[in-house]
Amino acid sequence: MTKSEMQPRIQRLLEGEESTSAAWRWLGIKLLEAAPGRTLCVMPVTEEMRNHQGVCHGGFITALADSAMGSALATVLPEGERHMSFDLKLSLMRTVRVGETLRAEGTVLHAGRRTAVGECRLHVDGKLVATASGSFVVHRPEQTD
Amino acid sequence: MTKSEMQPRIQRLLEGEESTSAAWRWLGIKLLEAAPGRTLCVMPVTEEMRNHQGVCHGGFITALADSAMGSALATVLPEGERHMSFDLKLSLMRTVRVGETLRAEGTVLHAGRRTAVGECRLHVDGKLVATASGSFVVHRPEQTD
Amino acid sequence: MTKSEMQPRIQRLLEGEESTSAAWRWLGIKLLEAAPGRTLCVMPVTEEMRNHQGVCHGGFITALADSAMGSALATVLPEGERHMSFDLKLSLMRTVRVGETLRAEGTVLHAGRRTAVGECRLHVDGKLVATASGSFVVHRPEQTD
Amino acid sequence: MTKSEMQPRIQRLLEGEESTSAAWRWLGIKLLEAAPGRTLCVMPVTEEMRNHQGVCHGGFITALADSAMGSALATVLPEGERHMSFDLKLSLMRTVRVGETLRAEGTVLHAGRRTAVGECRLHVDGKLVATASGSFVVHRPEQTD
Repeated sequence: MTKSEMQPRIQRLLEGEESTSAAWRWLGIKLLEAAPGRTLCVMPVTEEMRNHQGVCHGGFITALADSAMGSALATVLPEGERHMSFDLKLSLMRTVRVGETLRAEGTVLHAGRRTAVGECRLHVDGKLVATASGSFVVHRPEQTD
Repeated sequence: MTKSEMQPRIQRLLEGEESTSAAWRWLGIKLLEAAPGRTLCVMPVTEEMRNHQGVCHGGFITALADSAMGSALATVLPEGERHMSFDLKLSLMRTVRVGETLRAEGTVLHAGRRTAVGECRLHVDGKLVATASGSFVVHRPEQTD
Repeated sequence: MTKSEMQPRIQRLLEGEESTSAAWRWLGIKLLEAAPGRTLCVMPVTEEMRNHQGVCHGGFITALADSAMGSALATVLPEGERHMSFDLKLSLMRTVRVGETLRAEGTVLHAGRRTAVGECRLHVDGKLVATASGSFVVHRPEQTD
Repeated sequence: MTKSEMQPRIQRLLEGEESTSAAWRWLGIKLLEAAPGRTLCVMPVTEEMRNHQGVCHGGFITALADSAMGSALATVLPEGERHMSFDLKLSLMRTVRVGETLRAEGTVLHAGRRTAVGECRLHVDGKLVATASGSFVVHRPEQTD
């Protein structure tokens, strides 16, 4: 699949249109780059994401990682596909602070007929703060179940 | 540690006080039960949590699981401790819909001097929808670094 | 599926027959108990499993956990099924020594048409030493691909 | 740490000396390359590693991944250190057959005072068959506990 064949949904996100995902809008996730098998998403860490220890709650970092991997997967699947996270794994190496911007690069490692595997690296100011991997169940449009 | 010795922060959450965590307030997470090594947290799945496929974004489920495991850990650690998620793993078995309420039971499996391991089971209406496990780095108050 | 309907392969293992898996024989894994959705497997930790720090190499603990979850899955699937580990996650809480016997209880949390999720608790002398979770891709006999 | 400062144990493995780890010898794991923060290990898949479905048991793939990450970690830690896997996560993308040789590249993503994170990519004949990540608890020689 070449860049010009990517799903219209991905193309529109790249052009700055609002996401059709309420979660993306709520979290402030934006798609900055997309190529077949790879996307770059960003998310500003806001006051609302602060945990009781004063730093970004790990759940939001996972949410961004999941979003980056999911959108990377969408770049290699035809329109009409559905994919669902089956498992998510996050390794957190550094705390992330309010006011920082998280950049998440999602990559597709494997896209089979029914399952897919992605990974994600998350940086703040060029420093690796977390890595993630995820497995996805894929329903391609021609599949009837 | 007995229930009456649990950190005042946990006691106050149980009494219905607002969480000191902005993330908990934003996500609507409430602590319903706490016993040494175990907590029950709930989160209503709102419109804002909807992904572009119309169901709850996996990141919020992870956020709740992390919160449940973190609060379970707090029930067995003395006041002044700090703990940080080191890795998080989520297995998603069923999709979760807007309007449903997620119940997450966090359990401490191991609480060592420097590290801890927790797990979490997440239910909707009595059905298991996800499981999670997490590792934590622990700083007990007497530790100086 | 009741106990008497379990695959003959599982029944034979319970009766003490040698496993058809070379890996099980090599590692000394035995199936002690099996009920629908649950198995108990044991493995003696031998000199060969010692890592350069003198304790059991984590890979063998994972091998046992994978085996316990896979056999638990086999108790709820019809003969002729195939299942493959898709992801495995192990949390190690205590070191395991040569001469100890690992007991692994595998449990099926979810068995869908195409995917399944299992978990495992591993004990030595009644102490929890590790937990594992795994996702599996399932091919039921009626499926043609 | 430069290559010439790597622990003698790693240097000797590179020179083809037998590993001091019984597990490495039993599994036939060899260290082919080592640079600061990175190693390449290989393991031939033997008849003994066959599971009852006829392909390599996932536990051995995990064992190799753990070994590659552990040795990569040893390249950046001083002699006398001890490190233990704290969690291991493997994503399996393709089955691995008896007679194939697995190549595992271990990389250190983070090496803190007390914890470290590594990842691993496993190939057969240039094809990605699995990825792994792992967290480690590190005891540096100067630490007294």
